Amino acid sequence: MKVKLAKIDTLPPKEMLKENYVKKTDEYIVKIGEIQKRLYAEDKQALLIVLQGMDGSGKDGVIKNVFYKINPLGIEVQCFKKPTAEELGHDFLWRVHKVVPLKGMIKIFNRSHYEDILIQRVHKWIDEETVTKRMNHINNFEKLLEESGTKVLKFYLHVSKEVQLERLEERKTNIEKMWKHKDQDMVERASWDEYMKAYEDCFANCDKSAEWQIIPADKNWYKEYLIAKSICTTLEKWTLNGQFWKVQ
Amino acid sequence: MKVKLAKIDTLPPKEMLKENYVKKTDEYIVKIGEIQKRLYAEDKQALLIVLQGMDGSGKDGVIKNVFYKINPLGIEVQCFKKPTAEELGHDFLWRVHKVVPLKGMIKIFNRSHYEDILIQRVHKWIDEETVTKRMNHINNFEKLLEESGTKVLKFYLHVSKEVQLERLEERKTNIEKMWKHKDQDMVERASWDEYMKAYEDCFANCDKSAEWQIIPADKNWYKEYLIAKSICTTLEKWTLNGQFWKVQ
Repeated sequence: MKVKLAKIDTLPPKEMLKENYVKKTDEYIVKIGEIQKRLYAEDKQALLIVLQGMDGSGKDGVIKNVFYKINPLGIEVQCFKKPTAEELGHDFLWRVHKVVPLKGMIKIFNRSHYEDILIQRVHKWIDEETVTKRMNHINNFEKLLEESGTKVLKFYLHVSKEVQLERLEERKTNIEKMWKHKDQDMVERASWDEYMKAYEDCFANCDKSAEWQIIPADKNWYKEYLIAKSICTTLEKWTLNGQFWKVQ
Repeated sequence: MKVKLAKIDTLPPKEMLKENYVKKTDEYIVKIGEIQKRLYAEDKQALLIVLQGMDGSGKDGVIKNVFYKINPLGIEVQCFKKPTAEELGHDFLWRVHKVVPLKGMIKIFNRSHYEDILIQRVHKWIDEETVTKRMNHINNFEKLLEESGTKVLKFYLHVSKEVQLERLEERKTNIEKMWKHKDQDMVERASWDEYMKAYEDCFANCDKSAEWQIIPADKNWYKEYLIAKSICTTLEKWTLNGQFWKVQ
């Protein structure tokens, strides 16, 4: 999928009004909770949701606001931090493969294996040949998951540079958000253009069977609406499509 | 690598005499132990040895007799048994990827991910389309390991049907070997031809970068000589070849 991120709006279309969509989002969220019960009971398929985006793009907000109707028994969130010595002592997918969802489960990756071709590429910790090889390994890996009954849904939260700055600044003053503040975020922000280029290459090289969805993320209500809708409709289609249950 | 196993001798060439090779084997074994120290100290590369073969082909004997000069700190043996419920709740490579060697280590797989296209295929637990897909995933997986600094060495222990029978029968009477007896081994033996065909397909579809070595295995001294030699020379070449140390 070839895209130029600078040309994609980070705001909702003007004609879409928040008040008309918040209720729809809630309906999707309730439905996701319902479908999860069956996913869990059936124990044959799994859902992996990959969230990527710049700092302040709202990944944590998605986790908090879209999945709260799901029984915690059936969902797990996996954050990927700076690799440990043991993780660095293996191939880059080792720590990721270990934590893919068990059948019946929903797993959210808050950041993911894509960081191995994003932050590592932007800072030139790896060369371009390694980036290409890793992209192929990522495609093979996700294909393995899909063929084994794990649906992979990937969302890129597309925030504008201006809104990002507002949000990072707010973390310094709003006592509710201070826990998120990291000095390093401003350092990464300085490489904005390199990150956009690295993301565009991810989307372009990604296997067609599991394409990225680019989610305008300057407005949280719109971001949550799009993601809830996508997860809900995908779950319905996917699980109905020759698979194991009939939604009533 | 296309082979017809029935046409490959399971015995050593007649001119090779045991007494001339046992000492050489010992020398290789000592050297493997020496190289392992440096592999461990350097902490940058790993060695994965995959042992496959019919029951009674002598996999356990290789583990006991070829690696005894290695500090147990630097070597681990992984057996793959019947998958657990948790393992079955993931893709077939999940349990394998988890236990690949950490850099600096030597790991021996006593049986391996290849069982997922051997026993499972012979018993028709999976269809032929799945076999093809799995073979591709195995090639991709091993490529990932190789590119990440893990050398993969694969040995097929080639035993004749007659010698296998002798060895399985011996397990019923020799008190030292009774612990190995399993009724199921005779059941698997009945599918000998299907196993040979499945192995031949493994070798044919295997990526050229990490080809199988077929080891005549009717005589233990010869099997051990070939494997010790292969591991030793590979370790020397591989670690010298643009890699991290100079063997003195």
